[in-house]
Amino acid sequence: MKKKKAVVLFSGGLDSTTCLAWALGKGYDCRALSFNYGQRHDRENGAARKIARLLKTPLYGIKLDFPWLKSSSLVDEKKKLPDLAYPEIVSGNVPSTYVPGRNLVFVSIGVSFADSMGAEAVILGPNAVDYSGYPDCRPAFYEALEKAVNLGTQTPSAGKKIRLLTPIMKMSKSRIIRLALKLGAPLEHTWSCYAGGDKPCGKCDSCKLRAKGFEEAGVPDPALR
Amino acid sequence: MKKKKAVVLFSGGLDSTTCLAWALGKGYDCRALSFNYGQRHDRENGAARKIARLLKTPLYGIKLDFPWLKSSSLVDEKKKLPDLAYPEIVSGNVPSTYVPGRNLVFVSIGVSFADSMGAEAVILGPNAVDYSGYPDCRPAFYEALEKAVNLGTQTPSAGKKIRLLTPIMKMSKSRIIRLALKLGAPLEHTWSCYAGGDKPCGKCDSCKLRAKGFEEAGVPDPALR
Repeated sequence: MKKKKAVVLFSGGLDSTTCLAWALGKGYDCRALSFNYGQRHDRENGAARKIARLLKTPLYGIKLDFPWLKSSSLVDEKKKLPDLAYPEIVSGNVPSTYVPGRNLVFVSIGVSFADSMGAEAVILGPNAVDYSGYPDCRPAFYEALEKAVNLGTQTPSAGKKIRLLTPIMKMSKSRIIRLALKLGAPLEHTWSCYAGGDKPCGKCDSCKLRAKGFEEAGVPDPALR
Repeated sequence: MKKKKAVVLFSGGLDSTTCLAWALGKGYDCRALSFNYGQRHDRENGAARKIARLLKTPLYGIKLDFPWLKSSSLVDEKKKLPDLAYPEIVSGNVPSTYVPGRNLVFVSIGVSFADSMGAEAVILGPNAVDYSGYPDCRPAFYEALEKAVNLGTQTPSAGKKIRLLTPIMKMSKSRIIRLALKLGAPLEHTWSCYAGGDKPCGKCDSCKLRAKGFEEAGVPDPALR
């Protein structure tokens, strides 16, 4: 039987690496998409390339040059990254690292790719539990977007649906880590830190959520060895 | 009173030029977005620049380099453009010029821009009457997408909605032309032809729909003078 195709949105971070390993484990024939949108941590794209190679998955790097994304502290290096304690990170306020419409754009490009080859899923790793107040990490957004996608593409006219799969949406960070370890995902090569340095800063929201996850999972972070 | 901001998706063709003139007439403070996605008629972007200048609207040109768009005869110049008679053009079959997920991607990028500056509308010119079977020209698609957009962006948390406005959706081509003339839109600079030549080919779907529109409106096409 021919394998079902999927497009995996893949940043090289812990969450999307888990999603890619999950998709491969489910038997999908995967194509990975990574994005360079001027993020200060474009170093994550190097991690994405390494991990995609290890997982024998073709990776397509997409360059997006949108001048207005400088409104985000994740893109404009002149802006300060937030340095909050844990309860504030998950307060539900939209943080300055929010990139306007980012996941909407990423999913749309993934859907374009999927529609071009009749793939039946776009798989990505937003998370609504340990999340940082990003509106584009809410389950209701993806449910509504999936409806729109299937009205505005060619694939459904051939009797197939394009599904938006968000396998780690409702998992805590520690559960994601345990799933990744079970799937044998190469977490030692993942990159989560928002800052642009050579080593994780340990201070940004992303570093803090990651550290808390490994602590709760009771395992050391293999990327810090 | 401060003017409401809008992002107008603007190809330099007849339909989107009418939409831009409409938006300006409604009093929106407009930013125009044009896209180069490898279309064989990238000449339309030159038309867009000229018209945006005439209408004193800032234009942002966005380059998209998605290798999979070669599946469309509008992008891959080795493929033949369809040469159908009028009833076949509007048969509802998806033609080879369909670009996978194109309008979904364009709207998403427009929404990203709108969300970055708190603009309340993304305005674009799909058309469901004289249309060529493109799934991304259906009203239901835009209704569903608007719902998703307002769940996945920051602007609604400030009490404003981002609306997707499609003012010419239900107009015949001749009605669009009459509206454009009434608004004083510079139709003489618009470019509709899918082929990459110096003059409109007169044979592609887009040329045929345009010619039929001017004929029914009872006016000559000023771009052919």
